[in-house]
Amino acid sequence: MPTILIDPLPRTLDLICDSVTRAKLESLGQLIIHETGRMPDEMVDRYLPEVSIIMGQTRLPRERLQRAKNLKAIIDVETNFTDAIDYVYCFANGIHVLTPASAFADAVAESALGMTIDLARGITKADRDFRLGREAYGLDGNVGSFSLRGASVGLIGYGDLARSFHKLIAPFHCEVNVYDPWVPDYVLKRAGCKSVGLNQLLSQSRVILVFAGVTSENQGFLGRAELSLIRSDAIFLLMSRAAVVDFPTFIEFVKHGKFRAATDVFPIEPVPKEDPLRSIEGLLLSAHRTGGMPEALFEIGRQAVADAELILKGLPPVVCRKALPETVKRFRSKPVDVT
Amino acid sequence: MPTILIDPLPRTLDLICDSVTRAKLESLGQLIIHETGRMPDEMVDRYLPEVSIIMGQTRLPRERLQRAKNLKAIIDVETNFTDAIDYVYCFANGIHVLTPASAFADAVAESALGMTIDLARGITKADRDFRLGREAYGLDGNVGSFSLRGASVGLIGYGDLARSFHKLIAPFHCEVNVYDPWVPDYVLKRAGCKSVGLNQLLSQSRVILVFAGVTSENQGFLGRAELSLIRSDAIFLLMSRAAVVDFPTFIEFVKHGKFRAATDVFPIEPVPKEDPLRSIEGLLLSAHRTGGMPEALFEIGRQAVADAELILKGLPPVVCRKALPETVKRFRSKPVDVT
Amino acid sequence: MPTILIDPLPRTLDLICDSVTRAKLESLGQLIIHETGRMPDEMVDRYLPEVSIIMGQTRLPRERLQRAKNLKAIIDVETNFTDAIDYVYCFANGIHVLTPASAFADAVAESALGMTIDLARGITKADRDFRLGREAYGLDGNVGSFSLRGASVGLIGYGDLARSFHKLIAPFHCEVNVYDPWVPDYVLKRAGCKSVGLNQLLSQSRVILVFAGVTSENQGFLGRAELSLIRSDAIFLLMSRAAVVDFPTFIEFVKHGKFRAATDVFPIEPVPKEDPLRSIEGLLLSAHRTGGMPEALFEIGRQAVADAELILKGLPPVVCRKALPETVKRFRSKPVDVT
Amino acid sequence: MPTILIDPLPRTLDLICDSVTRAKLESLGQLIIHETGRMPDEMVDRYLPEVSIIMGQTRLPRERLQRAKNLKAIIDVETNFTDAIDYVYCFANGIHVLTPASAFADAVAESALGMTIDLARGITKADRDFRLGREAYGLDGNVGSFSLRGASVGLIGYGDLARSFHKLIAPFHCEVNVYDPWVPDYVLKRAGCKSVGLNQLLSQSRVILVFAGVTSENQGFLGRAELSLIRSDAIFLLMSRAAVVDFPTFIEFVKHGKFRAATDVFPIEPVPKEDPLRSIEGLLLSAHRTGGMPEALFEIGRQAVADAELILKGLPPVVCRKALPETVKRFRSKPVDVT
Repeated sequence: MPTILIDPLPRTLDLICDSVTRAKLESLGQLIIHETGRMPDEMVDRYLPEVSIIMGQTRLPRERLQRAKNLKAIIDVETNFTDAIDYVYCFANGIHVLTPASAFADAVAESALGMTIDLARGITKADRDFRLGREAYGLDGNVGSFSLRGASVGLIGYGDLARSFHKLIAPFHCEVNVYDPWVPDYVLKRAGCKSVGLNQLLSQSRVILVFAGVTSENQGFLGRAELSLIRSDAIFLLMSRAAVVDFPTFIEFVKHGKFRAATDVFPIEPVPKEDPLRSIEGLLLSAHRTGGMPEALFEIGRQAVADAELILKGLPPVVCRKALPETVKRFRSKPVDVT
Repeated sequence: MPTILIDPLPRTLDLICDSVTRAKLESLGQLIIHETGRMPDEMVDRYLPEVSIIMGQTRLPRERLQRAKNLKAIIDVETNFTDAIDYVYCFANGIHVLTPASAFADAVAESALGMTIDLARGITKADRDFRLGREAYGLDGNVGSFSLRGASVGLIGYGDLARSFHKLIAPFHCEVNVYDPWVPDYVLKRAGCKSVGLNQLLSQSRVILVFAGVTSENQGFLGRAELSLIRSDAIFLLMSRAAVVDFPTFIEFVKHGKFRAATDVFPIEPVPKEDPLRSIEGLLLSAHRTGGMPEALFEIGRQAVADAELILKGLPPVVCRKALPETVKRFRSKPVDVT
Repeated sequence: MPTILIDPLPRTLDLICDSVTRAKLESLGQLIIHETGRMPDEMVDRYLPEVSIIMGQTRLPRERLQRAKNLKAIIDVETNFTDAIDYVYCFANGIHVLTPASAFADAVAESALGMTIDLARGITKADRDFRLGREAYGLDGNVGSFSLRGASVGLIGYGDLARSFHKLIAPFHCEVNVYDPWVPDYVLKRAGCKSVGLNQLLSQSRVILVFAGVTSENQGFLGRAELSLIRSDAIFLLMSRAAVVDFPTFIEFVKHGKFRAATDVFPIEPVPKEDPLRSIEGLLLSAHRTGGMPEALFEIGRQAVADAELILKGLPPVVCRKALPETVKRFRSKPVDVT
Repeated sequence: MPTILIDPLPRTLDLICDSVTRAKLESLGQLIIHETGRMPDEMVDRYLPEVSIIMGQTRLPRERLQRAKNLKAIIDVETNFTDAIDYVYCFANGIHVLTPASAFADAVAESALGMTIDLARGITKADRDFRLGREAYGLDGNVGSFSLRGASVGLIGYGDLARSFHKLIAPFHCEVNVYDPWVPDYVLKRAGCKSVGLNQLLSQSRVILVFAGVTSENQGFLGRAELSLIRSDAIFLLMSRAAVVDFPTFIEFVKHGKFRAATDVFPIEPVPKEDPLRSIEGLLLSAHRTGGMPEALFEIGRQAVADAELILKGLPPVVCRKALPETVKRFRSKPVDVT
């Protein structure tokens, strides 16, 4: 039986594995589990010589990896690539470093669609107006509303989140333009999108969704100049990370009615109680909750275990995202401390 | 040139025709238009002998119809079948009575999807909590949330609204059950739905949408007994007419948290300012505004003109809903007084 | 129990009803069945005063209809509108005349897709060449082949057959142009097609399918002038009726390699043994067999029974094609004598 | 400007690059092209120190790779992984070894659908019968025919070919079962398929397609025992490689009518002129021509150039198949000698 170290902080196995997945995982090997904090060094060190797979954010510098002669894969179940691993060693020695990065994609995409329709059609605002006794009926209640059907949609970033979202809007027959320097036109064209420049996307789209993860290169790439290009009748949804946008300017623009917007992410979370963004009329507020569904966490387990099974059979993983020499050092999403 | 009477109260041609449709309409015949109120009797009577098509809710008792020897069609652009027409005469004499009933379907369906995801994922409530400084982040912010993906959806009524909605949820791979006594199992099966009894639908569905129009037979058919069947983790969306449900009981149940709900319709509109439903936490409020989009009104014109053109070419209409002997007297939606 | 006359020549109940449909039919009323030839006059006459629904091509002149005081519907299960009915009387008296016209649509559409790919990719021809020992491999075997993906498709006629076919080619992302004077642009646009003139369709499409039924107005409308417009690299599939095309010219053109073609229909069936069309290389031959699947015949029963049930409940039929004053006299498809 | 060696035998640049792709390729670097045979050793050796990308099946043993200090990727445009490369060195040194393996998938899948409908509906056979004067009309012409709609489809292998095919049959609403030991249930479930054992697939499916490539482990895995499980009313299509099946037994079974079949591949190609399989009635014959479309060859260029561009920008390739330590030595498709 192969040995599998489970060091899932800040997750627990129960959070990431439904019962079927847990049973499958247990059938794959001998599980060495430590869930009450980071796995102690001595525990890690004891199992290094025999371990085949490590699930977690265990610290794995070169000296540890050199002792882990049977190690085939490290799977980060928090879903980020940490700095605690000697990636160069892993790449040179055929150790897969993986993370179930797309686990949250479906949950985020569903929320993104709900929030897109919400902004386009004014759903939350209409409910708020109704509670305040100032609702308007029929046509009068739809000033500024527009339909997602046939609208020009601009996706910034075309990774897992955007692809899941793209599937959901298929029945709306939107024109979909994409800006993603990591994805070639070939892929976009086959996916039914058009590759466009960032400025063109911002200035022409009626519906803009930011799905781009944060990297060492794109922090704040949606700055004042870029945000100024957005049409006044557009809606802008920030679904990935606050760091990709000049957040204060973004908030300032929405506050002054330059466009309507939604955000699921903030530079500091929790947002300070007295932060004035809490009362901006044209801003749909979501407390980093679009991905955090129990079902999404179970996807982490399913993806990790599916690849673990393949790897233990001597096959390459096909589900999780792989750490790659070109990109692993560029990702800048901060791991979460608690689930 | 055939004569076409345009008596569009409570609409106007500008409201229901975009420029392309207006140009098409003008090419079809001589337009006799009266938009400042109901067309005067003498004006109607003058043109009766020659008129081919009447667009509007013009009063057309037998004595008028008998004089309208060239009349081929009456098209109600308010989108209801009024009592002002002698339908028996029309049926016996091959005069089409039509209405662009599906004009609002796409707009309502889009809102219905937005409101469905809103209730399932708690979007409006999360925004409200955020504004009140009581938002919860991540998993904690999703207590009671569920995904539409794969959920059991029950549609009450499978007419134009429901069909449009059904197309929009295709990417969610829901199980869709339908209760509609006017639609045979054959049609539902081909549409990928399952025909079920009302009680089964109510007691088993996680997501319930009421799209059924009101008829002489179904007023209040969703009474206390039926509403009591709804699961406590279900969401219930009233999208068609308030009269199909025991509205006070519905409100009472939502107030007491028996299930979450949304409604676009109310027994009395505008809703009284002091109505306590305005503050119910689990109720998403919409002021009869899901259909009233400018684009939906233009659909009225497009549908009416498309059929008018066919009819004037000696072909049968294929777009609008037809008044039929079996059903015309059963419809009970109140016409609106103003657009 | 309502009385239902079953006079299904040239069908039999077993041919058109699977067991579930038969059971449903039997539950609807008292069935008076005569399957060994046309129902004798005295048998028809005996039941006229009480009959609610007649299924078949029973002769129904005015004098009979006047005696059938309870008659609500006539359903032609051969699937044509015959001259044996006084339609004017039916229309004036609210008697539905129906036929399950779309029963064959799915079967024909599936064959049409198979034959389209066959012609585009040379499947049957490649098999024939292989049997003759003259096959060519790889690229050499694909001279003249093209892909349906993204091809320009022209549909002549946009009724049940074309609509079913259109759904099947959705994954091929074709541009679909339609010529059908009975269908308004409004409908085509919503279906994702473009309305074009016949000559434009013929001269520009790479793939042309004729789905148009034959009427009193369109016989031979695809004449020499029209067929001359077809591109030499196009494929042309005649799926509906031979009478819509100048058949000898069509055959002559294919024989001389002006374009490749397939046909399921012929002016005289069976085709004479010595007809030289049997050896034309560029012609894919099908003996009026695309629709005649047992499953398609069962659709006749399902559609007829679904509408019969609605009608007996006092509801309008929604499945079968309705005879309409504008069109019933225009249809010219010859009924078949035997199934 | 980076140096790109183009050694495309048995392809040529014109065969694999349309003009847009060629222009893009030329913009990426200095192209060193040799198309008249394998690139001479001295030519390769001269450019090794500077080359960034090699396109072709150039022999690359360790001693050459050690000299190629700038080499980032080797892209096999014949589309196989040859034995001429020291993969271990590449893996340890971050040199991508790629091939545009999915270039042929769309072409093969389209043919596979055509051939599936052909066998299910008897299209080629009906044409052959017609030419022989023994065609049967209508129902009589459909003995043994069945519809793909709703049929149980079994896919053996779920790689690029199968995935492309799966998309094409979406409108047929088939139940799709898959046997592929390299693909986890997780992936199949999300793709809307069910993972089943090989024997279950063979014994239960109405439609069986073999898309599995040949590896060191699966040669002849469809042997006499497995082929004996196939239903007599099933159709069996061999679309990938002859070596995965016990070919003589397969042919024997089809000859004796145990099931109907199609094959695009043969143990020896060209097939000997006198091979008796040429006259088997139930066998649809295709001379390894389903993939060999000009458009498919252009996909090779598009995929290769798309990844080359990413790699030269310092980004990971995302389009081509990657040689992986676990699998590269298992592939056993013979490279072709000529395009």
